[in-house]
Amino acid sequence: MNGTGEHFVLPARAGKAFRLARGASVRIINTYGSQVVDTWAFSAIDPTEFMSMEHTRLYLARIAPKVGDTLVTNRARPCLTLAEDTSGGVHDTLLPACDTCRYARLGAAEGHSNCADNFRSALVEIGLPLSHVPAPLNLFENSVPDLNGVIVIKPPVCRYGSYVTLRAEANLVLVLSACPQDITLTNGVDRSPRDVHLEIVRPAE
Amino acid sequence: MNGTGEHFVLPARAGKAFRLARGASVRIINTYGSQVVDTWAFSAIDPTEFMSMEHTRLYLARIAPKVGDTLVTNRARPCLTLAEDTSGGVHDTLLPACDTCRYARLGAAEGHSNCADNFRSALVEIGLPLSHVPAPLNLFENSVPDLNGVIVIKPPVCRYGSYVTLRAEANLVLVLSACPQDITLTNGVDRSPRDVHLEIVRPAE
Repeated sequence: MNGTGEHFVLPARAGKAFRLARGASVRIINTYGSQVVDTWAFSAIDPTEFMSMEHTRLYLARIAPKVGDTLVTNRARPCLTLAEDTSGGVHDTLLPACDTCRYARLGAAEGHSNCADNFRSALVEIGLPLSHVPAPLNLFENSVPDLNGVIVIKPPVCRYGSYVTLRAEANLVLVLSACPQDITLTNGVDRSPRDVHLEIVRPAE
Repeated sequence: MNGTGEHFVLPARAGKAFRLARGASVRIINTYGSQVVDTWAFSAIDPTEFMSMEHTRLYLARIAPKVGDTLVTNRARPCLTLAEDTSGGVHDTLLPACDTCRYARLGAAEGHSNCADNFRSALVEIGLPLSHVPAPLNLFENSVPDLNGVIVIKPPVCRYGSYVTLRAEANLVLVLSACPQDITLTNGVDRSPRDVHLEIVRPAE
């Protein structure tokens, strides 16, 4: 990416869906250094084909992607490539999007914003409602399991302004949610959801 | 379980769906010691609520369940409890059901039987078709990641006749598939899918 793309803000606690043509890239900038971004992708032609964490783990033979890796769909086709990563490279593929059940269990007041609802709203807005919420790629989420498989959610390891760049390997709908988690350490020790900045570079016409 | 239940054979390479009332248990017997069984569960009332590997990992705070653990649905409600396990306790929650894409990549002839198709066929048979194949609980599958998150599929660690018992925590539809994998080491070094024996104990009326 050369820094000449369209710039957007993904506001704290909010979600957004947008179309990415094959070859386009999105840089997801962790402006404040501790914001997890739940990430989904779907075929723009057939939304029953979506980026699948379990298929990605199988084909990468690894829990989480590294720079150069291509995440795949539930039909094992290339979906998104992790083209750049200055964040320290710690991302999660194991955990679900936060949802109303999660916040109820954590004792939050009813109506707490959450990534699952952000996902659904973003897809409704783009005219592509889905019946279930696939497991997301949780960018910047630090929940690497230990040798016994125990998962503890720790603050992200990334720094202010670090980023990842994802390149579309097919014509996609991308959905991002700036995770509204403010109870656990998901979004850092201050438990404050923050804005994320996006830069989209479209392929030349 | 007291050994007085109904006995069934789940034939090698085949799938089966059946209803389990809350409190019922199924013992899944790895008769020949190296057969992986892909396992799904759904609410009998609302099939959009299903056993979710990502939600289970979050609520157990662990990659895979141990004896006494309850796997949960995508609405974080109790689904199945791993009530007994004599198999060595190695099960997988990370990998997808094998499917046509998997066998195409492995160079198998077209039409290779697979767990995803077994799942779909079993649900059609029981009158409950679903639009997507959730990530299964892969009983007996030995794909424990190493410290670097690398996943290598090794032969199962279980012995002839060892078993797990799953207890239904809600009124469920259970789907099992005796994995047809005969190319990788999933089902052991002889790469031969085998029959699995089942014993279902229903709660007293």
